[in-house]
Amino acid sequence: MTPSCSLFGIKTGLIHQGEEILPLLLLGLKKQELTLIDGDILVIAESALATAEGRLVGLTGVTPSKEANELAIQYELDPRLAEIVIRESDEIIGGIPGFLLCTSNGNLLPNAGVDGSNAPEGMVSLLPADPNMSAKKIRDDIFQLTGASVAVLVIDSRTHPMRYGCSGVAIGCSGIPSVLDERGKKDLFGRELKVTRRAIADNIASAAELLMGEADEGVPVVLVRGLEIPVGNYEGVEQIAAEECLFMGIISKNAQNRCQ
Amino acid sequence: MTPSCSLFGIKTGLIHQGEEILPLLLLGLKKQELTLIDGDILVIAESALATAEGRLVGLTGVTPSKEANELAIQYELDPRLAEIVIRESDEIIGGIPGFLLCTSNGNLLPNAGVDGSNAPEGMVSLLPADPNMSAKKIRDDIFQLTGASVAVLVIDSRTHPMRYGCSGVAIGCSGIPSVLDERGKKDLFGRELKVTRRAIADNIASAAELLMGEADEGVPVVLVRGLEIPVGNYEGVEQIAAEECLFMGIISKNAQNRCQ
Repeated sequence: MTPSCSLFGIKTGLIHQGEEILPLLLLGLKKQELTLIDGDILVIAESALATAEGRLVGLTGVTPSKEANELAIQYELDPRLAEIVIRESDEIIGGIPGFLLCTSNGNLLPNAGVDGSNAPEGMVSLLPADPNMSAKKIRDDIFQLTGASVAVLVIDSRTHPMRYGCSGVAIGCSGIPSVLDERGKKDLFGRELKVTRRAIADNIASAAELLMGEADEGVPVVLVRGLEIPVGNYEGVEQIAAEECLFMGIISKNAQNRCQ
Repeated sequence: MTPSCSLFGIKTGLIHQGEEILPLLLLGLKKQELTLIDGDILVIAESALATAEGRLVGLTGVTPSKEANELAIQYELDPRLAEIVIRESDEIIGGIPGFLLCTSNGNLLPNAGVDGSNAPEGMVSLLPADPNMSAKKIRDDIFQLTGASVAVLVIDSRTHPMRYGCSGVAIGCSGIPSVLDERGKKDLFGRELKVTRRAIADNIASAAELLMGEADEGVPVVLVRGLEIPVGNYEGVEQIAAEECLFMGIISKNAQNRCQ
């Protein structure tokens, strides 16, 4: 049996602050004559979830700290944006004009996920408060409402070192393992694979982004059907320890030099 | 019209050194009763292409240099592997046990793409010599043989900072733009997007990896059908300048400290 899968973009229309995302999602599926089945994977853009969760901050009420003003000058940012980025970050590691590189909850991400795109004028959106928990709640609610055992991913769009353009990463995951550990499996020549962990949640995130776009397309959800990934009680995006990360050993040596 | 797409894994059987990949690919498609049509995107694993191109090096004939021996001790590598990595790299930036972080032809990648998985015993595989050119040749040959105007990607599997597991990146591209530049497009609220370049080739690479696996699956090619991406005379994976890269400014500051 040769593997195959299908992806369907789901239109929900504009999602407003404080609105429940699930009814809009189910309505979108119905309009497209799609019925959820066991094993389906629903991929939700973090910007849509963040808006629904009311994760918007107005810039006008924000007073920049001294550190925010310094970062704003150094990296050509709105000082109020810099202030919100500081509040959302565990650490600011460095930057280039327009962006600060931050860590937040074990993730490495530009501007700590604070984003002015697809937010109303004068506002910025923060990342969803707890994307793993939101994914689990939507998955549980879908099971209650439809009886289908699906997986739910919440995804973001990120740049990667020396890659031009953004691609998808999973920031919330419920119902599938985020990473498949294939150590112990054999390669084509029958030898045991040494290091092979497949970031399937990130791969699904990137696949879904192909249909989402990032502008005014209004396709915040993608249904992925046919992947032979076991759906069950898996929770969370598996994280890597900084000392296991090929990049962080090098990046972190410079962390203490920031803002000098 | 709501966007959708389909992916089909194509089985070719084991590819041997020096074998032409295209006849195996076309035979695989035929066996699965798939006929190529305009706009199709064929995604080929770099390991399959590298094997076909004979990009295998035996470890026994390699004499490690002094630098290779030092790196081998510091990062717990086979000194012969370290030697080959040095030869394939423009620069070695650092490492963790088992891996060196290298630059090669504007790319940042572990062990300069030198890989012992899916290569015969005692051998390692190098990256294809010129993946963009190989992609173009396969695309041109397909047009000659079938009349279909398709795009061809050559893909690799990489780790990203603070992400657990590997996901797909494109290292060769012919027939579609590798990055869609959406600056000037409007967001959901009608404002111009500031920075939005979509790495569609990397996203397609990641999507294809979901069907390929990395072990003994023997699915080195994936057909992606239905994406509304214009297929035409686009060549190459667009590269980013180091000074535009959010990560490299920080990483490169430490490059001069390597091996001290």
